[in-house]
Amino acid sequence: MACAFCSHGLPQLRPSLLEWAAKRLSRRKGAPGWHWSSVLASEVGPGFPFQLKTTTTAAISKDFTEDRVWLNGREEDVGQPRLQACLQEIRRLARKRRNTWDGDLPPSSLNCKVHVASENNFPTAAGLASSAAGYACLAYTLARVYGVESDLSEVARRGSGSACRSLYGGFVEWQMGEQADGKDSIARQVAPESHWPELRVLILVVSAEKKLMGSTVGMQASVKTSPLLRFRAESVVPARMAEMTRCIQERDFRGFAQLTMQDSNQFHATCLDTFPPISYLSHISWRIIHLVHRFNAHHGDTKVAYTFDAGPNAVIFTLEDTMADFVAAVRHTFPPGSNGDTFLRGLQVRPASLPAELKAALAMEPTPGGVKYIIATQVGPGPQILDDPYTHLLGPDGLPKPAA
Amino acid sequence: MACAFCSHGLPQLRPSLLEWAAKRLSRRKGAPGWHWSSVLASEVGPGFPFQLKTTTTAAISKDFTEDRVWLNGREEDVGQPRLQACLQEIRRLARKRRNTWDGDLPPSSLNCKVHVASENNFPTAAGLASSAAGYACLAYTLARVYGVESDLSEVARRGSGSACRSLYGGFVEWQMGEQADGKDSIARQVAPESHWPELRVLILVVSAEKKLMGSTVGMQASVKTSPLLRFRAESVVPARMAEMTRCIQERDFRGFAQLTMQDSNQFHATCLDTFPPISYLSHISWRIIHLVHRFNAHHGDTKVAYTFDAGPNAVIFTLEDTMADFVAAVRHTFPPGSNGDTFLRGLQVRPASLPAELKAALAMEPTPGGVKYIIATQVGPGPQILDDPYTHLLGPDGLPKPAA
Repeated sequence: MACAFCSHGLPQLRPSLLEWAAKRLSRRKGAPGWHWSSVLASEVGPGFPFQLKTTTTAAISKDFTEDRVWLNGREEDVGQPRLQACLQEIRRLARKRRNTWDGDLPPSSLNCKVHVASENNFPTAAGLASSAAGYACLAYTLARVYGVESDLSEVARRGSGSACRSLYGGFVEWQMGEQADGKDSIARQVAPESHWPELRVLILVVSAEKKLMGSTVGMQASVKTSPLLRFRAESVVPARMAEMTRCIQERDFRGFAQLTMQDSNQFHATCLDTFPPISYLSHISWRIIHLVHRFNAHHGDTKVAYTFDAGPNAVIFTLEDTMADFVAAVRHTFPPGSNGDTFLRGLQVRPASLPAELKAALAMEPTPGGVKYIIATQVGPGPQILDDPYTHLLGPDGLPKPAA
Repeated sequence: MACAFCSHGLPQLRPSLLEWAAKRLSRRKGAPGWHWSSVLASEVGPGFPFQLKTTTTAAISKDFTEDRVWLNGREEDVGQPRLQACLQEIRRLARKRRNTWDGDLPPSSLNCKVHVASENNFPTAAGLASSAAGYACLAYTLARVYGVESDLSEVARRGSGSACRSLYGGFVEWQMGEQADGKDSIARQVAPESHWPELRVLILVVSAEKKLMGSTVGMQASVKTSPLLRFRAESVVPARMAEMTRCIQERDFRGFAQLTMQDSNQFHATCLDTFPPISYLSHISWRIIHLVHRFNAHHGDTKVAYTFDAGPNAVIFTLEDTMADFVAAVRHTFPPGSNGDTFLRGLQVRPASLPAELKAALAMEPTPGGVKYIIATQVGPGPQILDDPYTHLLGPDGLPKPAA
């Protein structure tokens, strides 16, 4: 085997849904002026007992007779268009680099076939942008294999529109572009993961009801039918992007939290304004929304924020000193069933009992099992190279290692 | 007793929620330019086995020592500001008229105290604008008692902002005004109740969950916090008003139905964009929304429309030939409990069984008891004078008659 690299890629959790308009609208090709929005995303990742991560190993060899890819242990069709687009783009960049390069590269690598294995360790159903993390990780890994050092946004984007965000750690802005094909829509790190160490993320995984309307159909319908979506993208998002950047840079949690909630709500408002209307929020999501507002009202301050993507699961942002109390409030409102010991996963959270006054202020009838479990985590770094061959997903024969 | 009049007033059901922006925003005094919207409302009323109506009787007499008022059989505080505002305005108009009048009027009527009794025969919890109907009926009745023949919009509006609509029957447009105090915001009949005899209205009364957020707080918050509400009122509503008027005039049910649903959805989108967000739609409301869209998709045409006001109850518009099938679909989706025989109230609807293909197309798990009952009705006339003394609510002594 000529060369093998392996890296971790991380799904990004969005402190706001500001990117939605851009992401969706950019699919409407040939409509100039439809690329306003920028995006801020925060990476969530390793360094903790429970890491949300994607691990990818790629290897090239003259012994390989064809490109092959395995996802979560299962071989996938390598001919699928997104995958092919990524492979073609990385090989084009490698060829370009070779033509201007005088260093030492394995002469035949460009003609080698590639084997790729990738795994997520988090539930794909949790709405945590697994494909964005996966394609970012793939682009990063392939670049190492083929010796490409240029910007990888374009490679990642061919896999998933929002994957260019996941190439960076910390707080990432997805810059708006002007071109109709979105090629100049790139990601920029606003602050590294070390910038705001007190920030915590809780993912409240909600018992899933079967969706009454698919999200792909929904996206297309929103662009076509919602007058509010266009207004939002043109007139609301730009100022909010600037404000969100300021909040992060100044570690202004109150501002960050309020804007995060307002923007999540406005995204879901445009879903409701779509025709036929789309509702990603379930009645459990609404109970979480009310819980957060009552929790904040009781404290007389905005100490917790929610955001929802295209599904009912809540992503909660809070600070380290508030996490235990809020988890107690969630436990009270959504008493776990038989899974009490695995209800909270990820970061350690000190046990806290719910103060009687807070319990009274919440004034909510408990909904047992409404939240299936909580993943506690924090902002993490971008893709990282794994040097230890033990962690690689492909064995010396270039095939996935048997599961341990 | 010098003079007694009694009239029916009717609550109006809105084919769309276009008026919302105007109604709410006009409360923000001193903000010029905040009176865009116009409103279309349809009266729903008598002539049917089950009439949605308000009945009001007023009497003046020199023997009365004070103004008194009874609502649904219970005496109310006559000093409440809205009631006082109505009484003062009608007496001002009566005084003005007397000064320019040479006819025969009871000379002392202006100095007489008034007794008023009013009753609704529909559930006030059903979100059917009972106070608008009540104040329209009150204004109409007081005008008869005091011999006032001028426009009563201003009198009614002092009771309830939207009551001026209920002074007319049929399809009513609530015209936008320019003045900051809303005085030039008046109602206009677009078409009489006889204009579209096939149009039917079904009110789906939903099992009420306790509201997590009050609507008055919500209204004020929307004006203050929702960027989408302002855009909606300025840029979306005017064109939709014109289109709604055209649909009614041309009896274009498909256009009428689609606009009705889109506008209901956009109203609720602005509620979601409010901070903290407001959700009037319950998960039963959402099931009704999906039911309507699937019913329409199955028929390849828009045969049914929903609209929701500030609560979870649905108002359904459809045509006579579709009513039985849709009621069967509602019965299937929300099987009645022990109240099967009183589940459908009001207009007679021929029994229909749900065709197997439609049942398959709905593909919805039944939710027993999700809809408590249905009121079937149609567009009705405006206030009407009841000549038969037997129907009056006050007896010869000027006090409410004992309940029959």
